[in-house]
Amino acid sequence: MNKKYLMTPGPTPVPQDIREEMAKPIIHHRTKEYQAIFKDATEGLKKLFKTSGDVLTFTSSGTGAMEASVVNLCSPGDKIIVIRGGKFGERFGEIGKAYGLNVVPIDVEWGTAVKTEVVADTVKKNPDAKALYATLCETSTATVTDIKAIGQILKGTDILLVVDVISGLGADEFQNDAWGVDVAVCGSQKGLMLPPGLAFCTVSERAMKAAEASKLPKFYFSFKKYKKSYMDTDTPFTSAITLVIGLKKAVEVINNKGVDNVIADHRKLGRAAREAAMALGLSVYSKSPSDAVTGINAPAGINADDIIKICKSELGVTFAGGQGDLKGKIFRIAHMGGIDEEHMGEAIKALEQALAKIGHKFTAGAGVAAAQKVLAGK
Amino acid sequence: MNKKYLMTPGPTPVPQDIREEMAKPIIHHRTKEYQAIFKDATEGLKKLFKTSGDVLTFTSSGTGAMEASVVNLCSPGDKIIVIRGGKFGERFGEIGKAYGLNVVPIDVEWGTAVKTEVVADTVKKNPDAKALYATLCETSTATVTDIKAIGQILKGTDILLVVDVISGLGADEFQNDAWGVDVAVCGSQKGLMLPPGLAFCTVSERAMKAAEASKLPKFYFSFKKYKKSYMDTDTPFTSAITLVIGLKKAVEVINNKGVDNVIADHRKLGRAAREAAMALGLSVYSKSPSDAVTGINAPAGINADDIIKICKSELGVTFAGGQGDLKGKIFRIAHMGGIDEEHMGEAIKALEQALAKIGHKFTAGAGVAAAQKVLAGK
Repeated sequence: MNKKYLMTPGPTPVPQDIREEMAKPIIHHRTKEYQAIFKDATEGLKKLFKTSGDVLTFTSSGTGAMEASVVNLCSPGDKIIVIRGGKFGERFGEIGKAYGLNVVPIDVEWGTAVKTEVVADTVKKNPDAKALYATLCETSTATVTDIKAIGQILKGTDILLVVDVISGLGADEFQNDAWGVDVAVCGSQKGLMLPPGLAFCTVSERAMKAAEASKLPKFYFSFKKYKKSYMDTDTPFTSAITLVIGLKKAVEVINNKGVDNVIADHRKLGRAAREAAMALGLSVYSKSPSDAVTGINAPAGINADDIIKICKSELGVTFAGGQGDLKGKIFRIAHMGGIDEEHMGEAIKALEQALAKIGHKFTAGAGVAAAQKVLAGK
Repeated sequence: MNKKYLMTPGPTPVPQDIREEMAKPIIHHRTKEYQAIFKDATEGLKKLFKTSGDVLTFTSSGTGAMEASVVNLCSPGDKIIVIRGGKFGERFGEIGKAYGLNVVPIDVEWGTAVKTEVVADTVKKNPDAKALYATLCETSTATVTDIKAIGQILKGTDILLVVDVISGLGADEFQNDAWGVDVAVCGSQKGLMLPPGLAFCTVSERAMKAAEASKLPKFYFSFKKYKKSYMDTDTPFTSAITLVIGLKKAVEVINNKGVDNVIADHRKLGRAAREAAMALGLSVYSKSPSDAVTGINAPAGINADDIIKICKSELGVTFAGGQGDLKGKIFRIAHMGGIDEEHMGEAIKALEQALAKIGHKFTAGAGVAAAQKVLAGK
């Protein structure tokens, strides 16, 4: 066990050149030097989100930006529609309730994507909703939702479309402007290959208008404050300078490769994970699997956390466990961000070793072979 | 111009060993390994704050923790007393107003500390205030306030004492528990020698009780959520892992040296800066100078920003300018965190060169000699 492989859906491995960039002597943030870095990072982010609008960068976890997408768009008592198909969809609802909003939930069976007709029906019944909150990749269930279809449903309505792309961006396809998204919320520690600590919101023109009219209290996460500072390529509060320096480098790496190529790579890694699981006699948890992370059901009678434990402590490969009701039932293999073919090969190898040790019957090498086949493009 | 010297009141230089610690391959946060790091960091912070109570760590700028100190203690319409003697004192008032609080300001002439009798009088007239917000070191004016005396005034009342120690901690003396402070707010990029991105709140028992009763809306900054997670040595949301790893190291460095020794060193650096300024025929802006940062008045007829510009672009030394009305009138030399005697020596050397270039008359070498005398303990 020499090298360690981090296969969790955030944080994902941070490439060495990005880590080195962030380890340079720190610079001051109210300088032309930093402003140029910040501007490059922001312009680079726009390409990843596929937006010509604003992308605001907050120093916070992704949850901070989720809160921003609520407090900036809504006023007390507003109605919001929230698609809840896992822990993170539920979080939008919790934030709405914490701010006294009228939350209309669309509860979706975990591991499945919301049915578009259900969304259409809920929208029809709630034309007075201020916004609809959806999740591109629901990390807790490794499930991807068809945001494009939801954008189509909301077209022509006054309901704002807010999408959590925290784990999805850079792995599952996403088009902010073309799909009619008003606010996309993201974090740094997933597809962006950075440590956690930065969060982002795209803001459409009509979202900024809503922010100007919004009456929920806010200060640190105020879109208006950020927008005003951005006119001077500045931030209202001291930003996490080293992380922004890493961000500039990370978006450069992704954009040099081309975001669509990066997504294609992760799609392939996702398929490799799923094919490997099936070749080992396991099944994929989600009916609508994301290309950012794969949830795999533990074999009957086996606790998923035991598989994770062996892989981590004996084989140097870290998977993530199930969250909430899924704890012990599934394990999750991430394939977003800095996770590449080498990682995936080692992960499947470790998985086979752990399964053999734990007594699961399968054809030795079948998982590795299945993954290899996908990765070789066959 | 080989080496660069960052003499700004945040960020301050991050020592190389801390930068290297943060540049190691990232680890996952829901692990025993990370929990042990997080616990050590938190225990170390308690020693710096001199508290036996909780210290909560947020991923945000210092302003985020300032907002936390408002939204967790208060309910809509509550009255708060805010000491405003500079940009950061004013910020507490702005946050209070953003949340619909009744802000009773104590306006203090910039560059002076509040008079204790004014505080006592305001407290007497407003016994129904929920909390009083003060600033240990008002960074914008480089002024220190006697928090101990304010604590004495509040003793026996139900008014909570909240103190912004963002730039003061580790440079100006501070005793959380002994002085009766309920919430002290801090950030990572000052005395703690880290990049920006983490913020802290100490929380006394009665502050936590207030948080349980508080009715202002909150989610990301909820004390209750953090407190609940802390019982499992966990955080409610993904923390800025690499910065926390740096934090563990930084508090170790400070505590190994002893926080009182670190403060004594900065006191000496502060005196050196002030003596040097006076030896060069300049005057110190503040009537109550902090040991974290020194504000120096530009000579008559000279724009302070010109001095800063020469020092930065020609001499590799970065000072900070004045903020708000002080822009162009003062420059600020920080002496907190990783700033040491070498930095101070180079800074005063650069200052002399810039002053000479700009046409200010003084005895060459007088500033360096004055600083040296203080640093040599004479």
